Amino acid sequence: MEEALLRQITVPGTSKIVLLVMDGLGGLPRPETGRSELEEADCPTLDRIAREGACGLTVPVGLGITPGSGPGHLALFGYDPVRYDIGRGVLEATGIDFDLQDTDVAARGNFCTVDRNGLITDRRAGRIPTEESARLVERLRQIQLPGVETFVEPVREHRFVLVLRGEGLSDRLSGTDPNREGHPPLPVNPLEPAATETAALLNRWIDEARRLLVDQERANAVLVRGFAKYPALPSMKELFRLNTAAIAIYPMYRGLAKLVGMTALPGGNSFAEEVDTLIRAWDDYDFFFIHFKGTDAAGEDGDFERKSRAVEQVDREVGRILDLKPDVLMIAGDHSTPAVLAAHSWHSVPFVLHGRWIRADLAEGFNERECMRGSLGTFPAMEALPLALAHAGRLTKYGA
Amino acid sequence: MEEALLRQITVPGTSKIVLLVMDGLGGLPRPETGRSELEEADCPTLDRIAREGACGLTVPVGLGITPGSGPGHLALFGYDPVRYDIGRGVLEATGIDFDLQDTDVAARGNFCTVDRNGLITDRRAGRIPTEESARLVERLRQIQLPGVETFVEPVREHRFVLVLRGEGLSDRLSGTDPNREGHPPLPVNPLEPAATETAALLNRWIDEARRLLVDQERANAVLVRGFAKYPALPSMKELFRLNTAAIAIYPMYRGLAKLVGMTALPGGNSFAEEVDTLIRAWDDYDFFFIHFKGTDAAGEDGDFERKSRAVEQVDREVGRILDLKPDVLMIAGDHSTPAVLAAHSWHSVPFVLHGRWIRADLAEGFNERECMRGSLGTFPAMEALPLALAHAGRLTKYGA
Repeated sequence: MEEALLRQITVPGTSKIVLLVMDGLGGLPRPETGRSELEEADCPTLDRIAREGACGLTVPVGLGITPGSGPGHLALFGYDPVRYDIGRGVLEATGIDFDLQDTDVAARGNFCTVDRNGLITDRRAGRIPTEESARLVERLRQIQLPGVETFVEPVREHRFVLVLRGEGLSDRLSGTDPNREGHPPLPVNPLEPAATETAALLNRWIDEARRLLVDQERANAVLVRGFAKYPALPSMKELFRLNTAAIAIYPMYRGLAKLVGMTALPGGNSFAEEVDTLIRAWDDYDFFFIHFKGTDAAGEDGDFERKSRAVEQVDREVGRILDLKPDVLMIAGDHSTPAVLAAHSWHSVPFVLHGRWIRADLAEGFNERECMRGSLGTFPAMEALPLALAHAGRLTKYGA
Repeated sequence: MEEALLRQITVPGTSKIVLLVMDGLGGLPRPETGRSELEEADCPTLDRIAREGACGLTVPVGLGITPGSGPGHLALFGYDPVRYDIGRGVLEATGIDFDLQDTDVAARGNFCTVDRNGLITDRRAGRIPTEESARLVERLRQIQLPGVETFVEPVREHRFVLVLRGEGLSDRLSGTDPNREGHPPLPVNPLEPAATETAALLNRWIDEARRLLVDQERANAVLVRGFAKYPALPSMKELFRLNTAAIAIYPMYRGLAKLVGMTALPGGNSFAEEVDTLIRAWDDYDFFFIHFKGTDAAGEDGDFERKSRAVEQVDREVGRILDLKPDVLMIAGDHSTPAVLAAHSWHSVPFVLHGRWIRADLAEGFNERECMRGSLGTFPAMEALPLALAHAGRLTKYGA
């Protein structure tokens, strides 16, 4: 949908919209049962929402495109994920409230382990605890680069943020993560001539990091990727006249939400606590993004059972969201993360919109197969928000 | 679909295409039965066409977007409704054969009633008869504005057209209809600095109209909106090599058809008479747009039963269209007008294409739920015409 058209027909209002993102929601059947994670989950409330709501399958970016979390979420927020490309580094930095400046280049870092030959043995260093990362980050702060300032900040578990501050830095750089174990980290390569110097600085930083970590048992190397500068995004307030709040535990999703102007509320430590926050903040905003990570984390780990259990975890709390009587509740995923693939995938993602003026459809439950029978068909994820606005009475007629 | 691509692959032919637009076709279930207007209608012939044809649901402009009649029809004629934005004033003026000039600004007028406090009591003045409107229009013709010519023409029932002719007029103006009773008419506001003078002229005209109508019982005020200049649209002849005719009773739809180069044939006074016209003109054109208003009128009035009966009215005549053996018959709606909403809505619209080379699908009847099971899925309305061209043998292969 054209941004300009939407701006033209959006009207202010007091109705309330909740977008519940179950990260990596979409799955695939496991061969043993022929049923997906969602189909194997026991989720009576989600099934009821699907029966009462309008179902469909979202395509996050395009058929065949496997999205990262950034484009997956941006699309659900109503932004064209191809037009607005946000680097992971910026997401991570924003997520931990790092005060990123316009000329800064930010990168997402992972602590990892390598063997004596320099081959990666664990890309996430066993997801070392945040405190352990913080200790290692202290070491990395010793590294000095000529002519630029560097910042290293712990994020969560094995993740950290690296920021370079100086003149003439470029973010057109390739990352060092080969995306598989048994291979050495890659060098940072410039993707444009103007990035040559920045690449050299980063490779120097990485070498020094390796030297400083060599004696560490739990994490003896780093991977850096997602080099990016701060993007210029219009806010959801500006685009859709919504007062928006985000409830997310993980920094990256809080960062993403802040980039589109959302107020990040405390996510607590569990989905139940996220819902508590939603209830407390109910009167203060009219659009709530609430993020659930469990489905994606289990999917990425290839743990089919745990992904089904994660769905059930949401199912136990989602009734409390319904009790708030939102005008529109959308339950969506930013992408699929089938446990059988143990990775993000390109598959379309189950979607349900619950609200007034629903056209009865044939979906009898909340899963991939039933959503195929929904009234929304298979549609671009970025059209979910306009649809929610319509159901919430926030769009007027287009044209005579 | 790209206009340029279509132009490149369209070939001339003698095959015949009929587009039957049932205005406001799409509906929603009523709570009492859980069934929509179409599902409650007894329409054996439409159901048979759906069983034999390729079914789907059209999205007129975009998900969540509630279209006016203009964009809803343009899309079905094969035009991008976002790219080509046509003002209501132009539609109305063209519909009554008013000879609009390039610099004219046309507006759609409604006679209405206001109470002694100036608050609107009926936005349509009880749909006063056309003759009554014509008498009131005579009065309004007395109004003189400095430096511009004004034209006032009755349309149908409470509707009229107002045209300003002069130099330097702008159509970037807001309308005066607050879209609800109990509020006063709004002033005309300029939407660009260059429109300030035109707005002032129009507000003066409206004040004088109010003064001239103050003693009238059935309509004592006016609402004006849809200010527009004549747009530059390529014709369907130019785009698709079609000799096109329109059969419509209401002026606005005749106007819309003329904007894309259709010849407007007499619609008569009923759908049966429209079909009579179609039969008479069968040899003279190769594309016929035939418009049925009853479904939308009943939907707008919130009359669920009457909308179902309107569908049955079409069902009784549509066999006569089939008897002509068109190469392609499309039955579509320009948008949904669910009776439970008593207004246009954003919901997708049932669609069937009947012709040769149909891929058998699962739709067992002509309604929202069955069309979800159709082979065309949920698709942009502007892609219906290319599809019809293909089925009519009017498109050659693209690429080697």
